[in-house]
Order: sequence, then structure tokens, then C-alpha cells
Amino acid sequence: MNIDGQHYRTIWEKDIDTICVIDQRKLPFVFEVEELTTVTQIAVAIKDMHIRGAGLIGATAGYGMYLAAKEFAVGTTEHFDTTLRQAAQMLKDTRPTAVNLAWAVDSQLARINTGKSTADKVQIALETARQIADGDSGMCRDLGNHGLVIIRELHTKNPDRPVNILTHCNAGWLAFVDYGSATGPIYAAHDAGIPVHVWVDETRPRNQGASLTAWELGRHGVPHTLIVDNAGGHLMQHGMVDMVITGADRVTGAGDAANKIGTYLKALAARDNGIPFYVALPSSTFDWAIHDGVKEIPIEERSGDEVKFFEGRNDKGQIARVQIALDTTPVSNYGFDVTPARLITGLITERGIIPANEEAITRAFPR
Amino acid sequence: MNIDGQHYRTIWEKDIDTICVIDQRKLPFVFEVEELTTVTQIAVAIKDMHIRGAGLIGATAGYGMYLAAKEFAVGTTEHFDTTLRQAAQMLKDTRPTAVNLAWAVDSQLARINTGKSTADKVQIALETARQIADGDSGMCRDLGNHGLVIIRELHTKNPDRPVNILTHCNAGWLAFVDYGSATGPIYAAHDAGIPVHVWVDETRPRNQGASLTAWELGRHGVPHTLIVDNAGGHLMQHGMVDMVITGADRVTGAGDAANKIGTYLKALAARDNGIPFYVALPSSTFDWAIHDGVKEIPIEERSGDEVKFFEGRNDKGQIARVQIALDTTPVSNYGFDVTPARLITGLITERGIIPANEEAITRAFPR
Repeated sequence: MNIDGQHYRTIWEKDIDTICVIDQRKLPFVFEVEELTTVTQIAVAIKDMHIRGAGLIGATAGYGMYLAAKEFAVGTTEHFDTTLRQAAQMLKDTRPTAVNLAWAVDSQLARINTGKSTADKVQIALETARQIADGDSGMCRDLGNHGLVIIRELHTKNPDRPVNILTHCNAGWLAFVDYGSATGPIYAAHDAGIPVHVWVDETRPRNQGASLTAWELGRHGVPHTLIVDNAGGHLMQHGMVDMVITGADRVTGAGDAANKIGTYLKALAARDNGIPFYVALPSSTFDWAIHDGVKEIPIEERSGDEVKFFEGRNDKGQIARVQIALDTTPVSNYGFDVTPARLITGLITERGIIPANEEAITRAFPR
Repeated sequence: MNIDGQHYRTIWEKDIDTICVIDQRKLPFVFEVEELTTVTQIAVAIKDMHIRGAGLIGATAGYGMYLAAKEFAVGTTEHFDTTLRQAAQMLKDTRPTAVNLAWAVDSQLARINTGKSTADKVQIALETARQIADGDSGMCRDLGNHGLVIIRELHTKNPDRPVNILTHCNAGWLAFVDYGSATGPIYAAHDAGIPVHVWVDETRPRNQGASLTAWELGRHGVPHTLIVDNAGGHLMQHGMVDMVITGADRVTGAGDAANKIGTYLKALAARDNGIPFYVALPSSTFDWAIHDGVKEIPIEERSGDEVKFFEGRNDKGQIARVQIALDTTPVSNYGFDVTPARLITGLITERGIIPANEEAITRAFPR
């Protein structure tokens, strides 16, 4: 993806000792690259959300396992295996809801185990980390090209104005290695010359829409408008939204999609106004073990301070926070909600657009 | 209503020259009473939102007309009539969406015109201002007692836990002279010993839920929890909401309700989960001239800075603001949306609970 004309991924190797990521906590005001050289630094970067997003967490954890392997290769084979398993657990514990994280770590463990020497294992870990990153990027590129077809059709129907797409949270380039899931089709359409305009939900409580999605769309040159999460229903009632595309943190085999809290409300509004609602996801986001998303997907509860305090830039240009409710006000802060498959027009995946039901999903992704 | 045990209304006469209101811009951190002695001060207090809310705006405008009459009574009769009409227009222009404002000002003009002398007219204006305030308070008290019946029934069905009520924005005591519309039934139930718990939407972009509703419920001792606007759907999916009550800025003769942006999304979620969704309103909120709310009610667009900047208390205890999106990010900020009558279980009015359809509304409020 481009930042003011220069190509970037969200994670890259500066050299074989140093992994670079963009510190997303500083966005949109400061673009700062962070260099990571140990698995502990990687774990902190994931846990404290220097980086976030399903695909990028997976790719970063993949490189974390590589840095761990390289670090522990100095000891005995037994020491190597034990500490590597400990590092794997440490990485998995950083963000328990992230299904890509566990998948990347377990993939690395399985692959590394096939190595004949520690040197061999380190080399395998590096190659696997690269494959995870390239695989994520490739899946988003491919799903973007599939989603592009839908946007092109909408433009053909209504050629005199941009295709208006609403999105929630950041399932953008910044959440993956490149392209993004929800934004994959948007960037593909924009780059193909189809006029698009994106309504960006600010996405309370962490404002990822305002700080990340608006930033990346702006840097790439995609027209967009920031709105409060409350606004989407009104826009849909008045014909100002042609489609909704969101990402997902976890999608069940039956097509229920867990995503940032508030996604379900947009799906309801889309249904009420006859607007197509798509969930874009690389297939690594499927959780085959779960069927009924509303009943079975555990929803993370986060600190109430995320609701009570707003972080942003103060009038001196510093990052500061302000408090909007009394210290004594009780707060509840669920991180995600589940959109039932019945509200989803289709799943945009790297293998095409799939109806959100068990049969179609199983046909596209046989297990 | 009570503030930490002491009874208050939101507007009162300190003496015949001085009208007191609570400066709501300072809430929830500072409780400050503002004294108003001229119609210009009243207009500023309404326009700059020292006070807000349908009922309170009406009552304040009523006192504004009294202060104008008193001020202009020093001149000739002709001068009195001209300047009073100018003052009336100035007041009406402060918040063009507020139907109670125009109603209060026009009521005053009509009543004042019946006076035989300027002294007589000033006295009529004072009496009318008091009647508007008492009328507002009385309507909220009465609708609260009607709504109490619904809450009592819900409690009877499920006596082992509090009745969980979700509300959006502040249609509370602070938005009226006393009791509130959405909160009227809640305070009535709480005062009657029925255990209630209120989910308070923070209500972006101006956070009236976080700063006003949470404050007034807390001061009166009603259990409540602050949530982001995105959370309501998840709570409803998981049985954590028994009913929704919101206020309204304008309700059509057919029962469509314009209210703070985002209300429509909660009505959709309530419908999807079989949860009753009530709109509480004193009948002064009906706009008989309008039928189809979605098509006909004009929706105010407000400054994008309300979205881009958050105001709150900084770490030094001062009111400050932080910016969450780039200066260059385009913003759209619609203030209200319209919930169609088909999503509304009932209208809680001072004349009882009325189905949200033209026939029932006309029967309860014959024109």
C-alpha cells in the first residue's frame, strides 16, 4: 500500500536481526517505525497494541517465533525446545481473542519441529515467518480483486456518482500485512479507476476508524468522510450508502462473524434499508471449531477507562487524554459483537464471494 | 429531582428579575448555577447550549419572553410590540430544530397580545412562563407514572434481577424542567422501590449520556452503567436489556420519532431481539404538520469539530479538548435520525401509552 506515494507493508525485515513495524499508537499524527529484535519486544508490541489487526498480529507473531528461535539457538536442543514452547505460550497469551495469532504460532511450532538442527530450525522459522506474511498479503490481494467485482457492478448501476461504502473499525491495510480485508476491495476499485467514497465509522471506544482507517485511506488518496458510529443508519435511510464492508476477527463455519463492537448494528441497518452487507476475510479468520457465533464466541471485556478517557492530540501538539465521565460512573466495555450469518450478504474471501452459510463455506473451504 | 438529596428543577426564579439555570456545559465535573437577567442572555444560553433538551429549551424561551417583555416595557407600546417580535424571532433562531422552542415563544406572543397595558403584558408573560415550566414538569411526571406500569410488569415477570433499561442521549431531568421524558418512568419506578438498572449510551459526538444522563442518574441514586453507543446490540443479543426508552426531539402525527443520531440503530436491535422499544414524550413534542418522519423531518448538520475533538477534563482538572483525527480528514455530522413508527412498541405520553400509529395518536390527542 502507498503512504504518500511510497510503497509500504506493515511489517518488514530491515535485516535478519531486525523486524520493523509501524507504531500504530502514534497514528494519525506521527508516522513512526519501531524496530523489534527480540520475541519479548514482539510480545509487548502485540499486547500493548503498537500493532493490531488479525493478519498483522499473525504475521508479527510469526516473526516473533523466528526471533525466539534465533535467540534460543545458542543453548542446548532441550533448552531450545522448552524455551521455544514457553515463547509460543507467551505470544498466544498476549491477545487471547485473536485466532490468527494462535494459528501463526502453532504453524511455526509444527514447522520448526521438522528441522534437523537448531540452525536448520532457525532457517525454517525465518522462511515460515516470510510465508505467513506473504500469505496474508496474497490473501488480501486476492479477496480485494474478488470484492472489486461487486463494487464495479454497483458503479455500473449508478455511474454518475462514486460508490459509497461504509466501513467500521480498521480492517484496513494497517490490520494486515498489505491491502487489508475490508479495504482490499476498496483499494482494488480505487486503483482500477472506479470512483469510491468511504464512510469511516470512528469506532468507539478506541477510535480506530478516526485514527487508522481515515489515515490510511487519506495517505493512499481514497476519498472518505469520518462519521460517528451513530450516523450510519441515517445515511442508509437516505440513500447515501451503497454497500457496507467490514472485516472480522473470527467467522464461524456457519458464517456468523465476530467483529468490533457495533458491527451488528450496521448489519441491521443495512438489512432494514436493502443495502448489501459484506464481511471480508482471509480464510485464516475462519474458526472451524465454532458453529453458533452469538452463543459460542467468547467476547473480550476490556478496561472501562477506554470509554471514560479519550486519547488524542492536545492544543500543544502532545498526545494527551481527557476524561468524559465521573470517576464514580460504572462502565462496561465489551470489545466485539457477533453479526449473525442471516444478516450477511456474502463473505469476500481469497477464493471468491461466498454466501454466509455452512454449505457454501464448506464447499469453498473443504476440511 | 434530587441532587444528592436536595430537590432541584432545571430552571427557577431566584427573584422576579433573575432566572437560574444549571450550566450543563460544565457537567459532570462542576455543578454551576447561571443567573440570567436579559433575553439576550437567555438566547446565548440556548444557542451555546448552556441548557439543552426539548422541554427545558421551551421553558427557558418562555422566561426569555418574560425578560424581554419586562425589558421593553420601558418604551412606547409600538416600540414594545416591535422589539418583542424581534426578540421572539431571535429566540426562535437559536435552535431551529427545537419544536418546543417555537411553540413556547408563539404561545407567549399570543398570550401577551391579550394584555391591556404593558404592565399587564409583563405580568401575563411571567404567568405564562411559569405555566410553561409547570406544564412541562407536570407532563413528565404524568408520563413517568404511565411508564412505571410497564417497568413494574417487566419486574413482575423477572423478579430476581433489576429491570435493565437502555437509553440513548439525555432525555432526562436535565432536558426538561423536572423528571425527564425517557427518565420519567425510570425515576418513577426507582422511587416506587422497583429495582432498575440503566445502560447509558455515551451518545457521540457530544457525549450527553456520559456527561449528563450518567450524572443525573448517579445524583438521584439510580444504578447505571455507561457504555459506548456500539455496545447496545451485543447487550440485547445476550438478554442484558429488558426494554429501551428514549426521548424524542419531534414525533410526527404518524408516530415516527426524530431523536439524537443513533436512536434508529437501537430500535433496530430491539426489534431484532424482541425487546420493547418505547419513545417517551410530552405531547408538546408532536409535530402535527409532518407525517412521514424519514422523508419530511429536516435533520440538522452540525460542525465536524464535534466529531474531531473531544472535550473533557484533562490531568490538571481543567476542561480541555483533544483531537482524534487529522486536520485534513473530512467529517460529516448529522445531529438526529428518525426511527420509523413500525419499530416503536409504544409512545409513553402524559395521556398514557399509545401505539405509534396515526389512528391511536389522533384518538389520544384529537386536533
